[in-house]
Amino acid sequence: MALTAWVLYDFTAEPGNNELTVREGETLTVLDRNVGGGWVEAQNSRRQTGLVPEDYLQVGHFGSSEGGGSHVSNTTEQWDSRGHTSTRQATVEDDDGEWDDWDDQSVSSYRGSCHVDEDGGPSGRSAYGSSVKIPRNKFPFSKGPNPEVFLLAKPPANSRDRLPVYIGEVGPVWLYPTSPLDCVIADPRKESKLYGLKSFIEYQITPSTTNRPVNHRYKHFDWLYERLLEKFGSALPIPSLPDKQVTGRFEEDFIRMRMERLQAWMSRMCRHPVVSQSDVFQLFLTYRDEKEWKMGKRTAEKDETVGPMIFSMIEPEAAELDATHVEHRCEQYSQFTKLMDDGVRELLNVGHTHWKRCTGPLPKEYERIGRAFRNLSTVFNTSKYPGEETLTDALTATGTTYEEIAQIMKQQPNNDLHFLLETNSEYKSLLGCFPDIISVHKAAVEKVKEADRLVSAGKIDHSDRKSMNHRISSMSYSLQAEMNHFHSNRIYDYNRVMQLYLERQVEFYQQIADKLRTALSQFTTL
Amino acid sequence: MALTAWVLYDFTAEPGNNELTVREGETLTVLDRNVGGGWVEAQNSRRQTGLVPEDYLQVGHFGSSEGGGSHVSNTTEQWDSRGHTSTRQATVEDDDGEWDDWDDQSVSSYRGSCHVDEDGGPSGRSAYGSSVKIPRNKFPFSKGPNPEVFLLAKPPANSRDRLPVYIGEVGPVWLYPTSPLDCVIADPRKESKLYGLKSFIEYQITPSTTNRPVNHRYKHFDWLYERLLEKFGSALPIPSLPDKQVTGRFEEDFIRMRMERLQAWMSRMCRHPVVSQSDVFQLFLTYRDEKEWKMGKRTAEKDETVGPMIFSMIEPEAAELDATHVEHRCEQYSQFTKLMDDGVRELLNVGHTHWKRCTGPLPKEYERIGRAFRNLSTVFNTSKYPGEETLTDALTATGTTYEEIAQIMKQQPNNDLHFLLETNSEYKSLLGCFPDIISVHKAAVEKVKEADRLVSAGKIDHSDRKSMNHRISSMSYSLQAEMNHFHSNRIYDYNRVMQLYLERQVEFYQQIADKLRTALSQFTTL
Repeated sequence: MALTAWVLYDFTAEPGNNELTVREGETLTVLDRNVGGGWVEAQNSRRQTGLVPEDYLQVGHFGSSEGGGSHVSNTTEQWDSRGHTSTRQATVEDDDGEWDDWDDQSVSSYRGSCHVDEDGGPSGRSAYGSSVKIPRNKFPFSKGPNPEVFLLAKPPANSRDRLPVYIGEVGPVWLYPTSPLDCVIADPRKESKLYGLKSFIEYQITPSTTNRPVNHRYKHFDWLYERLLEKFGSALPIPSLPDKQVTGRFEEDFIRMRMERLQAWMSRMCRHPVVSQSDVFQLFLTYRDEKEWKMGKRTAEKDETVGPMIFSMIEPEAAELDATHVEHRCEQYSQFTKLMDDGVRELLNVGHTHWKRCTGPLPKEYERIGRAFRNLSTVFNTSKYPGEETLTDALTATGTTYEEIAQIMKQQPNNDLHFLLETNSEYKSLLGCFPDIISVHKAAVEKVKEADRLVSAGKIDHSDRKSMNHRISSMSYSLQAEMNHFHSNRIYDYNRVMQLYLERQVEFYQQIADKLRTALSQFTTL
Repeated sequence: MALTAWVLYDFTAEPGNNELTVREGETLTVLDRNVGGGWVEAQNSRRQTGLVPEDYLQVGHFGSSEGGGSHVSNTTEQWDSRGHTSTRQATVEDDDGEWDDWDDQSVSSYRGSCHVDEDGGPSGRSAYGSSVKIPRNKFPFSKGPNPEVFLLAKPPANSRDRLPVYIGEVGPVWLYPTSPLDCVIADPRKESKLYGLKSFIEYQITPSTTNRPVNHRYKHFDWLYERLLEKFGSALPIPSLPDKQVTGRFEEDFIRMRMERLQAWMSRMCRHPVVSQSDVFQLFLTYRDEKEWKMGKRTAEKDETVGPMIFSMIEPEAAELDATHVEHRCEQYSQFTKLMDDGVRELLNVGHTHWKRCTGPLPKEYERIGRAFRNLSTVFNTSKYPGEETLTDALTATGTTYEEIAQIMKQQPNNDLHFLLETNSEYKSLLGCFPDIISVHKAAVEKVKEADRLVSAGKIDHSDRKSMNHRISSMSYSLQAEMNHFHSNRIYDYNRVMQLYLERQVEFYQQIADKLRTALSQFTTL
C-alpha cells in the first residue's frame, strides 16, 4: 500500500522537468520514495503525478509529535572540531532541485548550507537587493567557546599555509601573487541525470593560469563558498553567491544573469591574495579528474584551520600592537563598513526605484507621446489642404522618434544602471560580512583586556598572556591588510563602474538629443 | 437690527483684499448690504468681518420657497432680438471678484455670461485641460426658431459689414487685410476701486495699427468674447478666454499666465480676417476715451446681425452650390474637427501626465541619485586611504551633476511642454466651437431639403426657395473659407510649436549629455 505525504511548503514545478506543483497543506500519495536525488514521486488528489523534493514533504506521520518526518530529519546537530555548536537546517531550495551529488560526503555537507530567502520565496523577488543573502552569523565567536581557546591555541604544523602580512606603502598588506589570477565562466550547458529525469546547468570555468577548462554546477560553487566561508569567514569577507532559484532556473535570462554573477563572484575571489592561493580554491579551478576532485573535496572538508583558527596562520613582519591600538583600528573599520553599508543600500534603493520607472511608466509615456503625434499627423493628412504633407511627414517622423526613444529608454537600465547595481550589490554582500569579522575581533580584544585577571586567577600563565598579545596583534594586522585590500579594490571598482555608468548615460542622452535633432530637421523653417 | 444671511456656496477670501472666507450652510450677520459692486459686508459667528459676494448669499429668507433670495434674483429670462429664449444664471465667479462696471448696461450683460467650471470649483484645477471652458450651445439653432426664419430673412441694409468670399488657390477664402493686425498685451497693473476696498488687474493692449495703448480689465475681454461669440459664433469658432479665477488672482504666476493666454487669444483674433475687421473688435483695440468706449459698447450690444444672421452678410464670388454639395462638405469638416479634437485631447492627456512626472517623481529620483553618490563619496573620504580623493572628488562632482540635472528637469516642462500644451489647449477650445457651427449648418441643410414640400404646402413660394438655395450656398462658402483659414493657421501653428518643442527638447537632452560628460571627465582613466 502506498504511503501518504503532507506538503510542508509550496513548490512550483519546472515545466518539462517531470515535477509536480504542490501547495502547503496538500496531501499526496507517495508512488516512489526511492527515486533518488532527494526526490519523491507522488500523486495529488487530481491524480497528477510528478517529482516533489523530499524535504518539502512530511511522509507518513501526520501531525505526530515525534519529530516532523523527513523534513526535520535533515536537521542535524553538529559539534565541530572547534567545539562550536551549530544547528543547521536543511535548505528548502536547491540549485537544480536536487540534493544528490557524486559522493555522499558532499551531500551532507551541501545539505548543511542554509539559504533561507529574506523575502520568503523564490519567486517575486526583484532583480537586485533582496537577491543578496543575509550572511548568517556562521562563527558567532561570542556564542562559541571562550576566545582563549583560539587565543591560546597552538598554530597548526603546516607552515605552507602561513599567511604573511607585509608593511607596504599603504600599511599592512597581504602577500600578492606576482601574476594575478582570473578565470572565465562560459558555455552553460543543460545536462541530465537520473536517466534524464532531472536536469541541471553545468558551467565551464577556465582559469588564466592553466588555461584548462573545468566543469562545475552551481552546487559546486556553493560547496566552494561554504568551504571558503568556514575557513576564512572570521578574517575575510566571503560574499555570498548569487541566489538559488527553484523556478525559472532553465530560462535563458536567468542562466545568463546567474553566470554573470558567478563570474563576478569568482573574479573577486581570484583577485583576493589569500583566497586565490588557498588549496580549496586551487582545487576548484584546476582539478584534473573526478578522482582528484573527490580527494580534494574530502581533504578540504577535513581542514581544521577554519574559523578563528585562521588567525594562527597570520605572520606579520611588523612589531606587535597593543590591545588599545587593535581596538581603535577595529572601531574605525566597524564605523567605515557600517556607513558604507548605509550608503550602498541607499544607492541600491534609489537605483531599484529608478529602474522600475525607466523600464515602466517613463517609456510608456514616451510611446504615448509618439503615438499622439502620429495620430494627429494621420488626422491632419485627411485635410487635403495644399502643403499639408510638409507638416505631417515631419510630425509622423517626430512620433516615430519618440516611440524609438521609448524603446531605447526601456533597454537603457540594462546598459548602465545594471552594472552600477551589480557592483553595489556585490559590495552590499561584502559589507554584510564585516559585522561577524568585527565581532570576532571585539571578543578577542575583550578577552585580552582581562588577561591580567586570568593570570591572577591562575587560569593562564605569563607566557599564555604573551601569546594572547601576539595573537591579537596578528589579528589586527590581518584586519588591516584586509581593509587595505578592500579599499584598494573598492577604489578600483567604483572608479570603473562610475565611468562605465557615466559613459553609457552620456551615450544615452546624446543619442536622444541626436534623434530629436534629426526629427527637428524634418520640419520646414517657418 | 442687522439682517442675517445664509451662505449658498463656499467662498475663499483673497488675502489682503478685505474679503471673508465662508462655507456653504454658514449663517452670517449682514453689516452693510449697500457696499456696492455686488458685495455685502458681513460678520460670521466667530465675529470676523469682511466682504462676501452678494450672489453667494441668501439674505433674510431662510428656506422660504419664494425664489432663493438675491441669488435667484440674478437669474433672468431673456427673449432676445432673434427670439431665442436663453436662461442665464449669474456666475458665481468673477474676474476680480466684482460684478460692477463703468456702466450698468455692461453689468447686466456681463452678469449674463455663465462660466460654470467643468470641475466644479476655482481651485484645484491643473494648469491645462480643465482650464478650457466647454463652450455652451449658445446658438442652438435646432432649439431656436425654424431655420427658415434665417434662410428667408432679408439681409441687413448696412453693406459695410458685407463679408466677401473669394476663390483662392486653396478654394474659398476670406478677404485678408493687406497689413496683418496684431497687438501686444503688457504691463499688468493692480488697480483699486470702491475707495481701495476692491482691487483688479488692468492690462495695457497696444495694437500694431495705431501703436496707441488702451487699457482693459479681464472683464472687458470677457465682454468682447461675448460680443464676438454672439455675432460670429454660428459661422466662426470663437475660442473661449482663459479661465476666470476667484482665489489667487493677484499672484504673480497667475497674472503672468493669464496675460500670456489673453495674448494668445487676442493674437488669434487679430489674425482672423473677419473678426479683426469687425467694429466691436476695432472698438476694443482703438477706442480713444471712455465716452467712445461706452458709446461703442452700446452700439455693439444693439447689433442685430448676430447668430445665424451673419450668413446674410456672406457674399461669395463663385457659383451657387447645391444642398448635396454643402452637406458633403459639412460632413467632411465635421469628421475632421471631431478626429482632430480626439487627437488633441490625447496629446493633452499624455502631456499632463508627462508634466506631472517631469516635475515630480523624476527630478526627485535624480536628486536622490545625486545625493546617494555624494553620501557615498563622504563615507569614502573617511577611509584615509592614499589616493582616495581621486575617486571622491569625481564622485561628489557626479552627485552634484545629478542634483543639477534634477533642477533642470523640474524647469524643463515650462520651457518646452508648456508651449505644446498651450497651443493644443487653444485648438481644443477652437475645435469645441465646431459642433455648434456644424449643427447650424445641418439644420439649414435639412430645411432646404424639404423646400419642395414647403412650396407645395404654400408655406414659401418659388422665390423664397431660390433665396434659401442662395443662402445655404453662402453658408457653405463661409464654412469652406473658415476651414481653409483654420487649416492654414493650424499648419503654421503646429509647425511653429513642434519646432519650438523639439528645439528645446534637443537643448535639454544635449545639456544633460554635456553635463554628464564633464562629470565623467573628472574620473581618472583606469
